[in-house]
Amino acid sequence: MTTRLARKSIRIRVKAGDTDFTGFIFHPRIIEWFSAGRIELLRSKKIALLKDGSLSVDGQQQKVSIVVGEVYARFHGPIKFDDLVCLQTRISEIRDKTIRFDFVIKHVGDDRPLVTGYSTSVCVDRETRRATSIPARMVELLTT
Amino acid sequence: MTTRLARKSIRIRVKAGDTDFTGFIFHPRIIEWFSAGRIELLRSKKIALLKDGSLSVDGQQQKVSIVVGEVYARFHGPIKFDDLVCLQTRISEIRDKTIRFDFVIKHVGDDRPLVTGYSTSVCVDRETRRATSIPARMVELLTT
Amino acid sequence: MTTRLARKSIRIRVKAGDTDFTGFIFHPRIIEWFSAGRIELLRSKKIALLKDGSLSVDGQQQKVSIVVGEVYARFHGPIKFDDLVCLQTRISEIRDKTIRFDFVIKHVGDDRPLVTGYSTSVCVDRETRRATSIPARMVELLTT
Amino acid sequence: MTTRLARKSIRIRVKAGDTDFTGFIFHPRIIEWFSAGRIELLRSKKIALLKDGSLSVDGQQQKVSIVVGEVYARFHGPIKFDDLVCLQTRISEIRDKTIRFDFVIKHVGDDRPLVTGYSTSVCVDRETRRATSIPARMVELLTT
Repeated sequence: MTTRLARKSIRIRVKAGDTDFTGFIFHPRIIEWFSAGRIELLRSKKIALLKDGSLSVDGQQQKVSIVVGEVYARFHGPIKFDDLVCLQTRISEIRDKTIRFDFVIKHVGDDRPLVTGYSTSVCVDRETRRATSIPARMVELLTT
Repeated sequence: MTTRLARKSIRIRVKAGDTDFTGFIFHPRIIEWFSAGRIELLRSKKIALLKDGSLSVDGQQQKVSIVVGEVYARFHGPIKFDDLVCLQTRISEIRDKTIRFDFVIKHVGDDRPLVTGYSTSVCVDRETRRATSIPARMVELLTT
Repeated sequence: MTTRLARKSIRIRVKAGDTDFTGFIFHPRIIEWFSAGRIELLRSKKIALLKDGSLSVDGQQQKVSIVVGEVYARFHGPIKFDDLVCLQTRISEIRDKTIRFDFVIKHVGDDRPLVTGYSTSVCVDRETRRATSIPARMVELLTT
Repeated sequence: MTTRLARKSIRIRVKAGDTDFTGFIFHPRIIEWFSAGRIELLRSKKIALLKDGSLSVDGQQQKVSIVVGEVYARFHGPIKFDDLVCLQTRISEIRDKTIRFDFVIKHVGDDRPLVTGYSTSVCVDRETRRATSIPARMVELLTT
């Protein structure tokens, strides 16, 4: 039996402020999109980042939060103003204290990857800011 | 006798992320510059926004903060990537609960205004989030 | 007989990057939202900003573009991370060379305005960058 | 004899718009800082990105440009509003068509790395957008 880890696709319309004077996307904006991709994936599994920075899992506020430990992106093809792209976010690994997210961005209706990347989120105790185990219920929700 | 209200100039190098696909500045970035202009003016008068959002006046943490109540900008001339501009911020009016800041942006070494604007900051109680009087010492520091 | 000028509402989810350390929205982001509001209003009337910065009206590329001449925003109430807000954009005036857009932001399902504002867009010749008359067909599309 | 590749440090004051509701830096802003670090390193060696997106080497406009091919960042320690940090950018490798930049961010006056990372820039032909050899004079200027 195989476990299936959570995944989520969102569509993004490239806005003026996402581009720069070269006419193409300003690449740090893509790192912002990754952030949106993670949040929407979590939301789809009833896990939410609350306004005070803590994590809510299945409606229960947690004593932990998650922070980004590392991020990587590789840019394969051009993205321009007003393009409609699809960001696919999927969890590729869950360890005791970390979750790895993989990202692919494509133009809607085109199968060539424009951007690929990953990020690692670390579960931290809200008080001590130290890495700590991911709540069991959260692992459960992300593993379907 | 005339009172002179605080003023401060800062230089800004236009970064890639400040521009958009049209080749010119993405105008909301200028509203961010206004924010930097206000903070540097206040800093030059020993008034600082602390990491918890409260205000420090002459080294004393206050029970108040300041928030932006309104902002206006008018765009007169083009600003492009890598331009070096000067943002002049000056206080034009201090009332009981509000401070008005006026802004002018010019290219360094050129006297034509590229952007003019203003913003109003409102002094708010940290607890109630209601408008309250600006601390007397703060008014004093901003009036020289 | 009354003419009705174009209007358009969009929903915006407040992202992490829209907020700042105070826990509330970083107000220049709202000026970015105004930009998105204008573009979506125009799109809904078959007017598009092309990737080269020129304007397309009803599928016909124009020798003109539009640029923001001024912008104003007033902040009435707090907006926080993950809030779902509605941005209503409507054209309040069309003159020979300028269009005025009015904006209201509310929480979805709440009638109190959180932000109100306006901006003026100027029609400019792509070659000379000087203000010029708005194409007749564009005026027609925006007046229903 | 060893060759020494170019390096450059810049200081950055953390602005409100660099932070998010958690009270810490919004990590995609750091990717923007990397962009500023690269540009300032190049500028210090008389290499400039021009307003039309092309590259100027020692005052000579080139038929090539450079684009970011990949970027990686690892976050070790907290960065907050108003912190003064130092971004050290150095070239770690120059190949035929690519340049690798390494980054370290520390608090001014503190030796612990807060962020480490790297990026690869690819030299592309302005016409074809294909990878091409880095101009010899550019390699020379970056190797001291």
